[in-house]
Amino acid sequence: MTSNLFTFTPDPTLDLVLEREIDVPVELVWEAWTTPDSIKEWFCPKPWSVSSCEIDLRPGGKFNTVMRSPEGQEFPNSGCYLEVVPNQRLVFTDTLLPGFRPAPKPFFTAALLLEPTATGTRYTAIAIHGNEETRKQHEEMGFHEGWGTVVDQLVAHIKASIH
Amino acid sequence: MTSNLFTFTPDPTLDLVLEREIDVPVELVWEAWTTPDSIKEWFCPKPWSVSSCEIDLRPGGKFNTVMRSPEGQEFPNSGCYLEVVPNQRLVFTDTLLPGFRPAPKPFFTAALLLEPTATGTRYTAIAIHGNEETRKQHEEMGFHEGWGTVVDQLVAHIKASIH
Repeated sequence: MTSNLFTFTPDPTLDLVLEREIDVPVELVWEAWTTPDSIKEWFCPKPWSVSSCEIDLRPGGKFNTVMRSPEGQEFPNSGCYLEVVPNQRLVFTDTLLPGFRPAPKPFFTAALLLEPTATGTRYTAIAIHGNEETRKQHEEMGFHEGWGTVVDQLVAHIKASIH
Repeated sequence: MTSNLFTFTPDPTLDLVLEREIDVPVELVWEAWTTPDSIKEWFCPKPWSVSSCEIDLRPGGKFNTVMRSPEGQEFPNSGCYLEVVPNQRLVFTDTLLPGFRPAPKPFFTAALLLEPTATGTRYTAIAIHGNEETRKQHEEMGFHEGWGTVVDQLVAHIKASIH
């Protein structure tokens, strides 16, 4: 469909990067990231949860989730996918709604990059922002801790589903 | 690379649509839209001109142009491609900069849809906005007249380059 993929080169002043080596195969990481029922199990640091997830896995397709606080308050997130390369990269943004429509409250683009390793997967998540202020805000919201916890939950979910 | 393409369904309150039947083949329309030297010839209603054009034809790749007024004032436009399906559809936005980075002044997404006909091409351009206000602003800037003129210039450019 398209020519070669461009390489993401994070800008330390604008972007946040989480890189981890995990001992589960890329195919299962991909499946966990692209299946609504699976997303509900691990996508949000507990005791928060995901009460709803809609996925239309193609560029311009919907990626909506609703996060629920322990007190039951709900926070919807709407966005769309930008790149869908199975077992390799998944890019989505809240800057565009489904159908590539400009969103009312753009915040960031996320790139998930997966590479197979001898023992599992090199897992890289990049949060791409438009300015330093947004990057800082995301950092202060607990990007590193939150996304780190989510990787632990993802790995635990995959291992539980294998056994 | 991806699953099937979604169908654009313009929302009349938010989107602007220009549809034309033109008597040049889709392949030449595609080429004119994706070649910087060609873009400079027809992309801007004369006597305005395009003084610079950069194209990296892939999702997330750069699509930058600089428009120049008859008085010589320059207006840069930065954006990136979202979908690149040769001879069929080209989607780009100023909502994201190259590398899918959120842009400082998001305005709209453009979808160019091409279909071969018995005599040439069904040419559909959709300007997709985030709210009614932006749609109205774009309309008052002269979307229909401007994009219409540009199609005439595009067809004239293609015909001149054939003969």
